[in-house]
Amino acid sequence: MTDDNVSLITLNKPLRCIVKLGGAAVTCKHEIEKINEENLGILSMQLSQAIMASDSSKNVPGMDWSKRPGVSEISIPLDDFREQSLLESSNFIVVHGAGSFGHFQASRSGVHKGGLQLIPIVKAGFVATRISISYLLPETLAWAGLVVSVCIYLIPLAHAGMSLMVTSLNLEIVRALAREGIPSVGMSPFASGWSTCQRNLASADISQVAMAINSGFVPVLHGDAVLDTVQGCTILSGDVIIRHLAELLKPDYVVFLTDVLGVYDRPPTDPAAVLLREIAVDEDGNWSIVKPVLQNNSKQVEITVAAHDTTGGMVTKIAEAALIAKLGIDVYIVKAATDHSLRALKGEIKTEIPDDWLGTVIKSSPS
Amino acid sequence: MTDDNVSLITLNKPLRCIVKLGGAAVTCKHEIEKINEENLGILSMQLSQAIMASDSSKNVPGMDWSKRPGVSEISIPLDDFREQSLLESSNFIVVHGAGSFGHFQASRSGVHKGGLQLIPIVKAGFVATRISISYLLPETLAWAGLVVSVCIYLIPLAHAGMSLMVTSLNLEIVRALAREGIPSVGMSPFASGWSTCQRNLASADISQVAMAINSGFVPVLHGDAVLDTVQGCTILSGDVIIRHLAELLKPDYVVFLTDVLGVYDRPPTDPAAVLLREIAVDEDGNWSIVKPVLQNNSKQVEITVAAHDTTGGMVTKIAEAALIAKLGIDVYIVKAATDHSLRALKGEIKTEIPDDWLGTVIKSSPS
Repeated sequence: MTDDNVSLITLNKPLRCIVKLGGAAVTCKHEIEKINEENLGILSMQLSQAIMASDSSKNVPGMDWSKRPGVSEISIPLDDFREQSLLESSNFIVVHGAGSFGHFQASRSGVHKGGLQLIPIVKAGFVATRISISYLLPETLAWAGLVVSVCIYLIPLAHAGMSLMVTSLNLEIVRALAREGIPSVGMSPFASGWSTCQRNLASADISQVAMAINSGFVPVLHGDAVLDTVQGCTILSGDVIIRHLAELLKPDYVVFLTDVLGVYDRPPTDPAAVLLREIAVDEDGNWSIVKPVLQNNSKQVEITVAAHDTTGGMVTKIAEAALIAKLGIDVYIVKAATDHSLRALKGEIKTEIPDDWLGTVIKSSPS
Repeated sequence: MTDDNVSLITLNKPLRCIVKLGGAAVTCKHEIEKINEENLGILSMQLSQAIMASDSSKNVPGMDWSKRPGVSEISIPLDDFREQSLLESSNFIVVHGAGSFGHFQASRSGVHKGGLQLIPIVKAGFVATRISISYLLPETLAWAGLVVSVCIYLIPLAHAGMSLMVTSLNLEIVRALAREGIPSVGMSPFASGWSTCQRNLASADISQVAMAINSGFVPVLHGDAVLDTVQGCTILSGDVIIRHLAELLKPDYVVFLTDVLGVYDRPPTDPAAVLLREIAVDEDGNWSIVKPVLQNNSKQVEITVAAHDTTGGMVTKIAEAALIAKLGIDVYIVKAATDHSLRALKGEIKTEIPDDWLGTVIKSSPS
């Protein structure tokens, strides 16, 4: 893609971290379109601690000043802000997935046929309705081999449905972060002019993201339905957005928050599954397991095949993570709302991986 | 401002109408941050009829596929879409205000001091809280003569608060329109990179708006908190957005939906108030009342002073409307969710103003 604007993008201070809030980490698996409030709350608190630098004993006043249900007034913690000195904060970007929509991807991988008994939401949420999932995701249409003309007919419908849900989720996440004092601002890729050409990123103006950061905000982007110059429209995943942002803004590290401890060598439901602690990516993008030392060390193909994430997203995640690591940026895949995620967000894994830290580090192999 | 992108903007077919949903028309006056569901519903239905061309007997299936409260499944009217042939539709853009936020503008005009008894929401919603309104709107800060440094400190706070509420409203409006079959897509000016310089529009990329229209969508923009290159940030009003869109995209006509029948010569609560049916704007931007013929026809200054709208927005509205009319584009100011608004949206006022139509037409005077 052309990046005419790359030279114009300068941040006042370096970007410390891009955080991916995985759909599975912030939404309920067993109920469609329901946010996992508890996880989102903890996760927002941890992010606040990581962003607001060292002194976590300070109470950061909330920034969600929306009217509370059942209350006729708006309350703003004005005094809290008066007492608050300007906290030293780091530059962060948050990107989240499409929540329940991830399950559509699962179905794309064939999980919707074989996995119904394993994934209650597929059964409870989608299959029991009159919906064909194809009608929600044009991307799925393409996979199903349906012709472009059908897609064009469905573009407004698909975008209307998809975009509404994703933006609802975005609003709730922005709110949750704001409640913890993070100056979060939602920025929809569709509205920002991100578009694709045959499902590959074609244009993505990040100057507004950079300006928002320079003004002290934490931009919150999300996987979105976008226009595609060839097939009309498609779904741009949060992972692709993160890679693009990482390429241009060079964060210190990237954290993927998910609902499992990290990447395993086989489905984590398998009792023999081993958590992969460190994966190295070489210049050609090939990756190998550094830690633990497995008996058969050529596990690469096996992991690729063992798409164990219920949302089917782990393979994409690793592939995208590998592309980021190739740039020399460490990637941590870690379970959301745990002590491990807090340490990852704070950058404590940066120099070396502590023995008591559980998660997967993906980094470029020293050449 | 520079409009480098103007030459690149071409619509597949002409833009028929830009609609402003006034804050007063879609939110409840007496309860803060509460949407006037009834008005919004009627208004969405009328818009749907206006957009979906002539045959209003056809039932247009809804596009809000979000989960309904209390229902565990998502229902998509798939069969309805199958039976639906592609309806001929017109290009529309919807822009809405900031709802309850308009009242801050009222306070800016001094209403917050003298008008408390007249405007229950100011009393009930804001004054009873610990909030100083200044802390919500940096624009107000500037008016109050506070220094820029204070504003810079408050930017993230102000935007966090403001942006959240405006985007909530945007989501609800997009939803209401989608329910009536309008392929509406929310597009926040902040995310789209609109910015100001000393409160004047400095950059506003509308190429994404044009692309969305060409793909068959109805973009829904809104008054927003945006970055300002000099004072840090400010509020960009929906009216300014409309003028800019009108300048570049040349709609057939522009409709301002509000909560009164139109523009009066004095506060509509005054029994002697006269509804102004037609206002002419000359090349220099001066305006005169064409209809009705008032005894003293030099009412111009009086109207300017009689800022009768409770939100204080009518003077701005007329000024912006006059600038649009100067471009040769008719502007209709009309009460939302009435037969008059439906006729205005359908363009029935275009050739001549029917006697039984109540509202205000602002057009350029023949030179």
